[in-house]
Amino acid sequence: MQKPHRIGPLFTDLYELTMAAAYFQNNVQAKATFSLFVRPNENRNFYVAAGLETALDELSAFDFTDIACDYLKKTNLFSDNFIQFLSQFRFRGDVVAMPEGTVFFGDEPVMEITAPIIEAQLVETLLLNILGSNTLFATKGARCLHVSQGCPLVDFSLRRTQGQDAGLRVARSTYITGFAATSNVQAGKVFGIPVSGTMAHSYVSTFENEIDAFRAYADVFPDDVVFLIDTYETIAGAQKAARVGQEMNQQGHMLKGVRLDSGDLVALSKQVREILDAAGLANALIFASGGLDEFEIEKLLKKGARIDAFGVGTAVGTSADAPNLDIVYKLVRFNNRNIRKLSPGKQTLAGEKQVFRKLDAQGIMSVDTIGLRDESIADSQPLLAPVMRRGELVQDHPRLRDIQKNFKLNFNALGDRYKSIHESHRFPVCLSEKLKQVQEVQ
Amino acid sequence: MQKPHRIGPLFTDLYELTMAAAYFQNNVQAKATFSLFVRPNENRNFYVAAGLETALDELSAFDFTDIACDYLKKTNLFSDNFIQFLSQFRFRGDVVAMPEGTVFFGDEPVMEITAPIIEAQLVETLLLNILGSNTLFATKGARCLHVSQGCPLVDFSLRRTQGQDAGLRVARSTYITGFAATSNVQAGKVFGIPVSGTMAHSYVSTFENEIDAFRAYADVFPDDVVFLIDTYETIAGAQKAARVGQEMNQQGHMLKGVRLDSGDLVALSKQVREILDAAGLANALIFASGGLDEFEIEKLLKKGARIDAFGVGTAVGTSADAPNLDIVYKLVRFNNRNIRKLSPGKQTLAGEKQVFRKLDAQGIMSVDTIGLRDESIADSQPLLAPVMRRGELVQDHPRLRDIQKNFKLNFNALGDRYKSIHESHRFPVCLSEKLKQVQEVQ
Repeated sequence: MQKPHRIGPLFTDLYELTMAAAYFQNNVQAKATFSLFVRPNENRNFYVAAGLETALDELSAFDFTDIACDYLKKTNLFSDNFIQFLSQFRFRGDVVAMPEGTVFFGDEPVMEITAPIIEAQLVETLLLNILGSNTLFATKGARCLHVSQGCPLVDFSLRRTQGQDAGLRVARSTYITGFAATSNVQAGKVFGIPVSGTMAHSYVSTFENEIDAFRAYADVFPDDVVFLIDTYETIAGAQKAARVGQEMNQQGHMLKGVRLDSGDLVALSKQVREILDAAGLANALIFASGGLDEFEIEKLLKKGARIDAFGVGTAVGTSADAPNLDIVYKLVRFNNRNIRKLSPGKQTLAGEKQVFRKLDAQGIMSVDTIGLRDESIADSQPLLAPVMRRGELVQDHPRLRDIQKNFKLNFNALGDRYKSIHESHRFPVCLSEKLKQVQEVQ
Repeated sequence: MQKPHRIGPLFTDLYELTMAAAYFQNNVQAKATFSLFVRPNENRNFYVAAGLETALDELSAFDFTDIACDYLKKTNLFSDNFIQFLSQFRFRGDVVAMPEGTVFFGDEPVMEITAPIIEAQLVETLLLNILGSNTLFATKGARCLHVSQGCPLVDFSLRRTQGQDAGLRVARSTYITGFAATSNVQAGKVFGIPVSGTMAHSYVSTFENEIDAFRAYADVFPDDVVFLIDTYETIAGAQKAARVGQEMNQQGHMLKGVRLDSGDLVALSKQVREILDAAGLANALIFASGGLDEFEIEKLLKKGARIDAFGVGTAVGTSADAPNLDIVYKLVRFNNRNIRKLSPGKQTLAGEKQVFRKLDAQGIMSVDTIGLRDESIADSQPLLAPVMRRGELVQDHPRLRDIQKNFKLNFNALGDRYKSIHESHRFPVCLSEKLKQVQEVQ
C-alpha cells in the first residue's frame, strides 16, 4: 500500500519552534509528558479514536530537511546553532495511545507523549491535527452507522471536504467504523478501501434519451451498474431502468441497482421498489443520496423508506453539525514534577495517566476511571498501550480490518443511551484516588 | 516559492472515471461546457473567489502516472484500452474564471470549463474541492476582517483544521482577504505569507516562576516577543510582563505585546492596558485569542475591549458556522446543445455564460446580470476572464498582493447591508434576456 505524502515538521504553529528555540538557548532539556485529549462537549456523547497510524508514521519520519532549514533561516528568527540542532533532530520519545477504533470520552487522554521538552513540544500541532480530524470523522461515521439499520453506507464526500487529506481521512475514518466503501479513488489506492460510484446527472443529460444513457453504461459495466434515475422524472426513470435491467438479465447480467438523489425519498423509494419488483428485479438495490447524514438517514428509515444503501456526502465529510473537536495537548509533567493548568475553563489533570474501563456483567461499559499510569484498578482494563519507545514503533500497524473489529467490539459495549444522536448523555468518567491526590499536591 | 505537493488525478470520485469509461467505450467525444457555481444559502450574503491558482496548477499537471494506472487496472473495472487512453491523457480544455479575490454571489458561475466531455468530466471532483474549500475560508476571513475595525488578524487555526491542506488553504485564503499573518510555518514557506506566534501555557509552566519564563524568552527573541499572561492569574501576569518589558527597554529592546487567552477579555484588556501604560509601555500591543470568530470579535470591540490584534483559530479554520458550500459543477452545454437540469431544487442555467457587474455612481455594486458568454451588457463589467486555453495558462498567476488588492477593491464596492454577519440579504442577481431565451428553448 502506498502511503500518502509525508506531512513533515513545518506543519506546525510557529510558536512550537520559537518555544523550542527558547528552550534550546536556555539549555532546558528536562523530560516532559504531554497529554492529548478532547474536552467534553454536549454535541457528542462519545468519540472514536482514529489517526494513530498516520500520527506515528509522521513521528517516525519527523525530519527537518535542508529545504525546511533554509526556509527557517530566512525568517531571521532563529540562531544558526538552533537551526543546526533542528537539522539533526529526530523524535526519540515514548508514546502511549488508545488503539484506533477505541470508543472514548471527554477528558480521557487518547495519547500521552514523554520526551525531552523540545521533542514533545515540536510535535504538538501535527498530532492535534491528525488525531483530531480523523477522530472527528470516525465519530461522525459511527453516528451514521448507528442509525442505518444495517444498510451499507458509502462515503461520497470528497468533492466538498475541506481539502485533499480531509478527503482521505474521511474515507479511512468512516471505513474504520464500518462504512462499506468510498467514492474516493485515492483512498482506494492509498488505504485499500473498496471504491464505489454510480453516474452523474450530467452523464444522463449528454444522451438524447435517458434509456440510451442507461444502455450505454450497462454495455461497459454489465455487472456493476447503478442507474441514476432522477435526472428528468424519477418514476419514468425507474421504468426505463427496469426495462434495461430486464434486457441485462436476458444477456446473463444483473442490474445492481438504481440511485435516487432528489425529491421525496420515502414515497419515491416505495414506488420505485414496486416498479423494480414488478419487473422481476427484486435483487436490484435502491441507493439514496443527496444531503444525507445521521439525522436524515434516521428519519428516512423511520418513515419506512425502501432504501437499501446510502451515499453520504458533504455533511458527513465536514462533520457539519460539529465541524471541530476541542482537542488539546497539555503539559502534565515536567522535570519529575506534575503540572496543572488552572486558566478558567481550561483545567488539566496533572500526571502521567492511564484510562481504565470497567464493563458490567453483560459486557456493557459501566465506568471509566482516569488513574495514574502505573496503578491498576480492579476489574478494569487499561486503554492506553505503548505504541512508541524511544522513537521506534513498538509493533507493526494493525490492519484496517482489525481496527474495524476493535471499533465493533467497543461500540457493541457502549450503552444505548450514549449512542443517541439527539440526546446528550455524559458517560461516567471518574478519577482514581491516586490521581486525585496528585492534583491536590500542587 | 515551493508549491505544495501535487494532488493528482486519483483525487476523484470513482464515477468520474466510470463515466469517462462509458464515454470512451461508446466513442462519445463531443465538447461539453460545465459551470461551477455555489447555490445560494441564507448563511452567506457573499462569497470570495479563491483557489484558482491551485486549481489551474492541477489542471496543468493532470497526469495519470504509471502507479495510478496500475491501481486502476487492479480494480478490474476498466478495459486495457481505457487505461491506455488515461496514461496519455492531458487536460487540453478552455477555462474562464473569476480572478481570486472577486466577491461573488449564489448562482453566479465562478468558473466555466469547455473541453471534450471526458476531459471536462474527469476534473470535476478536483475543481469542486479546491475552489470550494478555498472560497469557504476566504469568505469566512472576509467576514472576520469586516468586523475587526482595522485590528490585525492572525490565523491560528492549524492544529484544528480538517487536515494539512485545509491548514494551507485557510492560511492563504484568509491572507487574501487581508489577514496579517498565520501561525502555519508551512504556509509561510509555500506561499511566502508572514508567520507569527507567541508562546503556550505549557512553556510558562515549565519555569519555576512566570517571570523567569518571560525573561528567558526575551533573551532569545528580544525584538519579537509577545508574553502569554494568563497561565496563572492574568493581572499578576501583566505586571510581570510589564516589569520584563521595562527591563527590555533598558537594554534597548521593545516588548511587542502580551496575549490574553481566557477570561473576560473586555475587562481584562482594559486593566492590562492600564498596567502597560503605567509602566511606560504604551506601544506594547494586546493580543487576544481563544475561541474567536467574527461574532466574538464584533462583540468584544463593541463592548470596548482594548484589544489591538486577534488570533483566530478553530472556528475560522473550519468555517464552523457554515462548514461547507453547496458548490456544484453542472453540464450546461453539450455537442452544441444547451443543457438544463430540472431535478427539484437543483435547476441549472443552460448555456455558456458570463457574469456582468454594474456599479452605481458611488462605485457601489448595484446589480449583477448573468448573461451569455458572448453578449455585452451596458455599463457593466464582465467578471469571468479566460485563464486557460487548450490546457495552457493564459498568463502567469497573479501575486498574492495583487489578489489582496483585487479583494479590497471588490469588498469596498460591496454595499454595507451585504457585509452583515447577522442578517441575510440577497444581492440582486438577474438574468439577461438572451440567457432567459436560451432557458425557454428547451
